[in-house]
Amino acid sequence: MRTLTLDNVNPALLKVQYAVRGELAIKAEQYREALKTEGNGLPFTKVINSNIGNPQQKGLDQPPITFTRQVCALMEWPALAELAPQVFPEDVKARAKELRDEIGSIGAYSHSQGVPIIRKNVAKFIEERDGYPANPNHIFLTGGASAGVSLLINLLITPPKSGILIPIPQYPLYTATLAQHRGVPLPYYLDETHEWSTSLDTIEAAIEKAAKDGVAPKALVVINPGNPTGALLDEVTQEKLVKLCEKHSLVLLADEVYQSNLHQPVTHPFTSFKKIVRRLDSPIALVSFHSISKGVMGECGRRGGYFECTNISDEILALIYKMVSVGLCPPLLGQIGVDCMVRPPKEGSESYPLWKQETDTIHRALAQRTGIMAERLNKLPGVKCVNSPGALYLYPQLELPEGAIKAAEEAGKSPDTFYALRLLDETGICVVSGEGFGKKPGHNYYRLTCLCPGVEEYVGALEAFHLKFMEKYGGAASS
Amino acid sequence: MRTLTLDNVNPALLKVQYAVRGELAIKAEQYREALKTEGNGLPFTKVINSNIGNPQQKGLDQPPITFTRQVCALMEWPALAELAPQVFPEDVKARAKELRDEIGSIGAYSHSQGVPIIRKNVAKFIEERDGYPANPNHIFLTGGASAGVSLLINLLITPPKSGILIPIPQYPLYTATLAQHRGVPLPYYLDETHEWSTSLDTIEAAIEKAAKDGVAPKALVVINPGNPTGALLDEVTQEKLVKLCEKHSLVLLADEVYQSNLHQPVTHPFTSFKKIVRRLDSPIALVSFHSISKGVMGECGRRGGYFECTNISDEILALIYKMVSVGLCPPLLGQIGVDCMVRPPKEGSESYPLWKQETDTIHRALAQRTGIMAERLNKLPGVKCVNSPGALYLYPQLELPEGAIKAAEEAGKSPDTFYALRLLDETGICVVSGEGFGKKPGHNYYRLTCLCPGVEEYVGALEAFHLKFMEKYGGAASS
Repeated sequence: MRTLTLDNVNPALLKVQYAVRGELAIKAEQYREALKTEGNGLPFTKVINSNIGNPQQKGLDQPPITFTRQVCALMEWPALAELAPQVFPEDVKARAKELRDEIGSIGAYSHSQGVPIIRKNVAKFIEERDGYPANPNHIFLTGGASAGVSLLINLLITPPKSGILIPIPQYPLYTATLAQHRGVPLPYYLDETHEWSTSLDTIEAAIEKAAKDGVAPKALVVINPGNPTGALLDEVTQEKLVKLCEKHSLVLLADEVYQSNLHQPVTHPFTSFKKIVRRLDSPIALVSFHSISKGVMGECGRRGGYFECTNISDEILALIYKMVSVGLCPPLLGQIGVDCMVRPPKEGSESYPLWKQETDTIHRALAQRTGIMAERLNKLPGVKCVNSPGALYLYPQLELPEGAIKAAEEAGKSPDTFYALRLLDETGICVVSGEGFGKKPGHNYYRLTCLCPGVEEYVGALEAFHLKFMEKYGGAASS
Repeated sequence: MRTLTLDNVNPALLKVQYAVRGELAIKAEQYREALKTEGNGLPFTKVINSNIGNPQQKGLDQPPITFTRQVCALMEWPALAELAPQVFPEDVKARAKELRDEIGSIGAYSHSQGVPIIRKNVAKFIEERDGYPANPNHIFLTGGASAGVSLLINLLITPPKSGILIPIPQYPLYTATLAQHRGVPLPYYLDETHEWSTSLDTIEAAIEKAAKDGVAPKALVVINPGNPTGALLDEVTQEKLVKLCEKHSLVLLADEVYQSNLHQPVTHPFTSFKKIVRRLDSPIALVSFHSISKGVMGECGRRGGYFECTNISDEILALIYKMVSVGLCPPLLGQIGVDCMVRPPKEGSESYPLWKQETDTIHRALAQRTGIMAERLNKLPGVKCVNSPGALYLYPQLELPEGAIKAAEEAGKSPDTFYALRLLDETGICVVSGEGFGKKPGHNYYRLTCLCPGVEEYVGALEAFHLKFMEKYGGAASS
């Protein structure tokens, strides 16, 4: 008999690449295992996973919002409200009761589109954010934003050859999902010299190139705040992007999962694309994604999120419903998480003071760490780094010495992957090489999260490694 | 600009059909809404969703296993162990502590393949069940079995034309997922006259037909216990099926999610395909699926399950890992649910007596209801029904009068869909028409769950409706 080999499986899947959990992450996992044995000979005592925005992971330990966890505990075991009434604030008990009355058990499948009352609460949240109405029937709860993005890309890609415009650098979910569904990534480059801003001309050029290559562009992906860049779009650019989608009949896929991670909100505020589309009274089809994995929630493991459809016809909504119904429903505890995100404790309620303190602490710590890390990285020879105004990351550019580039070539790696591997080997810090996000030839980057609590020790290790690396490979920058 | 319409989206998705949540389920939802308004004029006071194996849904209210919920409540809010220690059994606190020490926060992403310690526990469960070793690295935790099936079908289907052998009747997840991924369903018919048994000849015939049609068969799906049939395979047939997979180089996809729903375990026991493959020392590639949504857990909304890969090479395992890593990880609380399923309280522990009582009650009630419903349905004119020895369903065949067949034709419906729609209109009971599962021409069926607690009232309504329907449309059976 013939066995299952790489030669007889779906070739599209072989092309999928997802660097966030790729070679570096796998090696980091091996080091973590190795650290458990004595005499492991490793030059570090712990592995720090800065490769992924995972605030509550071991070692980072960003505490969850207590309100969310209390509501979920009561949903898990409702008898607790009677068995230990004194340990739960009144508003938590009221919230859990309200949700239970509507949902029943969290062990039951819900409506495939998500619990109706939670979708209503999401719609209210959007209305209050934007000042324009939102329709609960146009909202789909999901198991994190990724599930929704994958569904939409699967929906939009049509044979023989169609593609989706994606920013470079991008979050690799987009190229991975496009490869899976045989879509063509149509890259447009962000402008690093202007804080990773988005230029309409580069998008127009990418559309022209697609036409020459015989690829039909179906949608434009915008990540705002940016990942990995942390950049925030200004409203003038957003308006132009909407107009561009009108002109080219593009669906706008707005990845807005970092909308509440703003470190410089006065100079770099967030405006949703929904608001822009409504303000312009534009007819473009827009799908906006949000998640409980980022922001102050950081509830990655719960798997929750939603997407809102704007200007999408009932027949397409019915098609999306059909597709999500095959997967039955998103995780109920992810859906409860969404409810807690869009309906946090109100001022004056019993839970409010603790909620306020917890969320303020998270916002402040992230903004501080991002600023300190950007400042110190920028002082290193051969490192340039935009001080991210949003999201959870920094994306430093590396100008590496010729010696390092040669050594990387000999090792069969891109220079930034080579750098990131050495960083992991010597410090236990796991980052993602710029290779995973896409880049112009000859450029080198890495993405690291700004989640590590002990910023002194952490940046100290980065600095010491970098200086040693530069010295070893010749010091002078390559260009 | 061009808007998004059914003409410019992925045509493969238009072909997807998923009857379990289709027309009937949508109408049931509308009735449920209508019942909230006075003077709705409906001839029933509640909607009963017998269309889906969803034991904990409102109205059915199968209670969850307390042990699971207590462990999860402590994972949600670990402070409860100190704040209300008296309300948790000692073994629950120990389990939660053990999991927390390994996992950390359930708000963090886990290993994409699932938490290592939980995969180890799944492996132990499989070893104890089968008497053969299991490797935690060959186990992937999932958000329910559906997610795993979808991934495997996506992996196996290769252009230009390949297909997967599926039983008819089948659980419509298979045809839906094949349509989505452009695979060809290769139906083989189960033998209703022999308790829906599986015949090797019909599978060989389906393979021959595929060859004539230029379709390469890649895998064989076996659902055991059957859905919708409830049938259990005997070991002799299982051995033949494994040999057939060897002969034709087919991957065996074993959907075993109902493995603990056995109503006649002495005459109709369950044997896993893993055990058969190991006993025969067969080299076939096998993927076995399990879930926390069925069995005694019934934790559908939590979204948890796993699949085990047998005789699958490291390079294919790495490919599967890469694909699941794009989705980051399965829901943590679904993973905890899997742990509770494969490691229930041990005899002698504080939680054991309640766990035993709860699980015995669920098993007994389901077996009783299945028997009573099968007996009474079989007494109705024009109804024949195998008394399911497993799973959660009955799948009665209907011999409908000519008048009903004509009326269905006029309404543009298949006769069984017409029957199911009338049943819903008149009783509020929602079932799935046989049309959704596939069938031989001229046959009519519906699938209903055996989960409704008030069996007298429920079967009474079914009987009264059926007699009235038969009378209205002419009484005499069509064939």
